[in-house]
Amino acid sequence: MVQFDFTRRTRDCQSALVDVGADAAIVSPSPDMEYLTGFTDEPDRRLLFLVVLATGESVFIVPEMYREQIADATEVEDVRTWPWRSPETAMDLVEALLSEHDLRDGTLLLEDRMWATFVGQFHAYFPDATFGLASDVLEDLRIRKTDEELRALEEAGSLSDEVAEEIRGLGADVVGMTERELAFEIKTRLRDHGSTGVAFEPMVGAGPNSAKPHHRHSDRVIREGDPVMMDFGGIVDGYLGDQTRTLVFGGEPPAEFEDVHETVLEAHERGVDAVAPRVTAETVDEAAREVIEAAGYGDAYYHRTGHGVGLELHEPPFLKPNNDRELEPGMVCSVEPGVYLAGRFGVRIEDLVVVTESGCERINDTPRTWEP
Amino acid sequence: MVQFDFTRRTRDCQSALVDVGADAAIVSPSPDMEYLTGFTDEPDRRLLFLVVLATGESVFIVPEMYREQIADATEVEDVRTWPWRSPETAMDLVEALLSEHDLRDGTLLLEDRMWATFVGQFHAYFPDATFGLASDVLEDLRIRKTDEELRALEEAGSLSDEVAEEIRGLGADVVGMTERELAFEIKTRLRDHGSTGVAFEPMVGAGPNSAKPHHRHSDRVIREGDPVMMDFGGIVDGYLGDQTRTLVFGGEPPAEFEDVHETVLEAHERGVDAVAPRVTAETVDEAAREVIEAAGYGDAYYHRTGHGVGLELHEPPFLKPNNDRELEPGMVCSVEPGVYLAGRFGVRIEDLVVVTESGCERINDTPRTWEP
Repeated sequence: MVQFDFTRRTRDCQSALVDVGADAAIVSPSPDMEYLTGFTDEPDRRLLFLVVLATGESVFIVPEMYREQIADATEVEDVRTWPWRSPETAMDLVEALLSEHDLRDGTLLLEDRMWATFVGQFHAYFPDATFGLASDVLEDLRIRKTDEELRALEEAGSLSDEVAEEIRGLGADVVGMTERELAFEIKTRLRDHGSTGVAFEPMVGAGPNSAKPHHRHSDRVIREGDPVMMDFGGIVDGYLGDQTRTLVFGGEPPAEFEDVHETVLEAHERGVDAVAPRVTAETVDEAAREVIEAAGYGDAYYHRTGHGVGLELHEPPFLKPNNDRELEPGMVCSVEPGVYLAGRFGVRIEDLVVVTESGCERINDTPRTWEP
Repeated sequence: MVQFDFTRRTRDCQSALVDVGADAAIVSPSPDMEYLTGFTDEPDRRLLFLVVLATGESVFIVPEMYREQIADATEVEDVRTWPWRSPETAMDLVEALLSEHDLRDGTLLLEDRMWATFVGQFHAYFPDATFGLASDVLEDLRIRKTDEELRALEEAGSLSDEVAEEIRGLGADVVGMTERELAFEIKTRLRDHGSTGVAFEPMVGAGPNSAKPHHRHSDRVIREGDPVMMDFGGIVDGYLGDQTRTLVFGGEPPAEFEDVHETVLEAHERGVDAVAPRVTAETVDEAAREVIEAAGYGDAYYHRTGHGVGLELHEPPFLKPNNDRELEPGMVCSVEPGVYLAGRFGVRIEDLVVVTESGCERINDTPRTWEP
C-alpha cells in the first residue's frame, strides 16, 4: 500500500488558490477529492463536499451517516455533518462556513464534475460570489506524478500486462466466447492479480465492433478471423492502468488487416519515440498521425493520440492537434493511435508511458503483434 | 432482452416540456439519457449531449468517434458529430441547433448530473436563456415503472436473491475470508447468474465496519462472531437490484446483536406492510422508524428508510420524514431500516417492493434471519 502525502497535496492546493487569487475550492466526490484526501465515493444526490480554504483550512461537509467513515478514512479534522432529517440545512452549513470566513462574495472554484443540481444551489446561495472551476488549481498539481504515484501507476500497468499476456496465451480458446464472456474473464483475472477494481468497463470489440472506438462488449460471438480489440486496465491504490491490443485468435484475418495493423504499430512506435520533456503534446500526436496519413488511413483515425492517466482515466495532458502544452518529467500519458474501418474492423495499440528527464519509459510492455 | 419504447418515452418527455413551459431538455450521459434512448456512457470531459426539443425533435450531438455507436444503439435519427480536431466547435453545434429553433433565449432544462464545466459553458453561450433542471420533466416519467421495467427489475431482484442465498449457504466457509474476497465472490456470482454488471460496488462490512452504513469493503478478515452486512444488487437491461442482509457466519454474535437484529427486522416488516397506493412516503418511514425508536435505538438510525430504484440506484420516491409525496402503483422502492452502533456493529435489512393497486409486492424474498 503506497502512502500518499495528503497534507502536502492540500497545502499545495491552498498555495495555488492564493496564486490564482481564489478563496476556496469546493470539491464534490471525484478524482480531485480522492487526490486531496484519499476518500471519494460515487457522486450522489446527497450533498457531500470538501471545502479547501486559501487561508489554510480544510473542511468536510457530509451527511451524518458518513461521519465515522470520513473520520477513519481521511486526515481532515474538521468534519461537519448535516442532520439527515433536514437535508435542506446542508447548504446552510456551507453558507455558515463561508460566512465565518467572510467569503459570501468571494471567488469560489467549484469541482469540474459537480452536478448541475448543486451548481444551481451555489449560484442561488451566493449571488455575489465569483465562480470558477477547481481545475484552475488542481490540474497543474495532478499532472506531474510523484514517485509514489508512479509506483502505483507502474503496479497497475504490470498487472494489466500480466492479464494481457494471459489472454494472449488463451489463443484459439477465445474463439467461440462472446465479447462479454471475454470481458468477464479479463475482469476476473485483473482481480486475481491484485487489482482493486477495473479502471473502466473493459472494451472487447470483435469483428465490426472493433471499428467502434468506444464499444464496451456485447453478446457477439468471437469467430475465427475476427480482429478483437481489447482495451482495459486495473487499479492500484486508486491509480489506473490502460492498454490496448488487437489480436486475431484463430483463422485468417480479413483482407487489409495486416497492413492496417502494421501501420498502427508503426504509428504507435513513432508516437512513443516522440515523447520527451519540452516536446509539445501536439508534436507527439503529429508523429503518430503522419504515419497513418501517409498510409492513406487519415480519415479512419478520428481521435486524439493520447491522454494523461492518473486517478482519472482521461486527464491532461491531451496529445492532440493544437495543444502546445510542453511535456514534463513525471507526466504519464497513453499513446494509442487507431484505424477504424466502419462495418469491417479496427486496430488500436495503446501503452502508457511516463516522461523522464531524457525521454520516456513504457509503463506497459507486452508483445504488440496481432498473432497470439 | 426486454424491449423498451424509447419513442414513447421521448414523446412523453416532449409533452412534459410543453406542460412546464420549457423549450428543451439537454441531457448529458446519465440514467436520463439511458431512459430516453437506451444509450449512455461514463460521463467524460468530451461533450456528448442529447437535445430533446418541445417541438418534437430529438438530436444527439456527439464526438465523431461515437457516430457509428450511437447510430447502432439508438433510434435517434439526427446525430450531429463534432470534428475531434476542433472540440471548441462542439458548443457551436449546440448553438446552431438552438438558433435554428430560435431558442437562444429559451427555457433550457439541463441534465441534473451535468458537470459544472459544461453548465458554465451553457451560461456563457446562452446568457439570455432561462435555466432549469431536466428532472422537472423526467422525474415524473421515470418514477412509475411500466410492465417492461418491472419485468427487468424483478429479474434483477431474482438474480440478486439467488446470490444472497448462495452466500448464505456458504455458512462457516465465509469465516477467514476478507471483506474484499467476499465482495469479489458476490460479483462473480452475480455475473454467473446473468447480471450484466453490479448495481454498485458491493458493501461487505464485518464487525465494526458493519456500523458504517456506506462502507464498501476492506482487507479486514471476517472472524467468528462478526456481524457481516452485505448490500448488493445485479443489473438486468439497465435496471438495478438492491438488497441487504446482515449475517453471522459462525461463532457467537456480540452482546445485544440479537435484540438489534430483531428490532430491525420488525421495523423492516412494518415498513413493507405500510407501503400502499395513496400512502405518503413519510408514513412508511414513520412506520419503520417508530419500532426502532420504541426499542431505544432512535439515535442509531440516522438515515431515511428507503429510496426509489430503477435505472438509478437512488431515485424518487424517497421514504423519509417530511416527504408527503403519495405512493402510486408502479413505483419501486427499498425498505431498509438499520441500526449502527459505532465501533461495535450494525444491522440493516433491505428489500425492494413494488407498489400495487392494493398494497405492495416484494421484489426480493430470501430469509431475513442472521443465522446462515
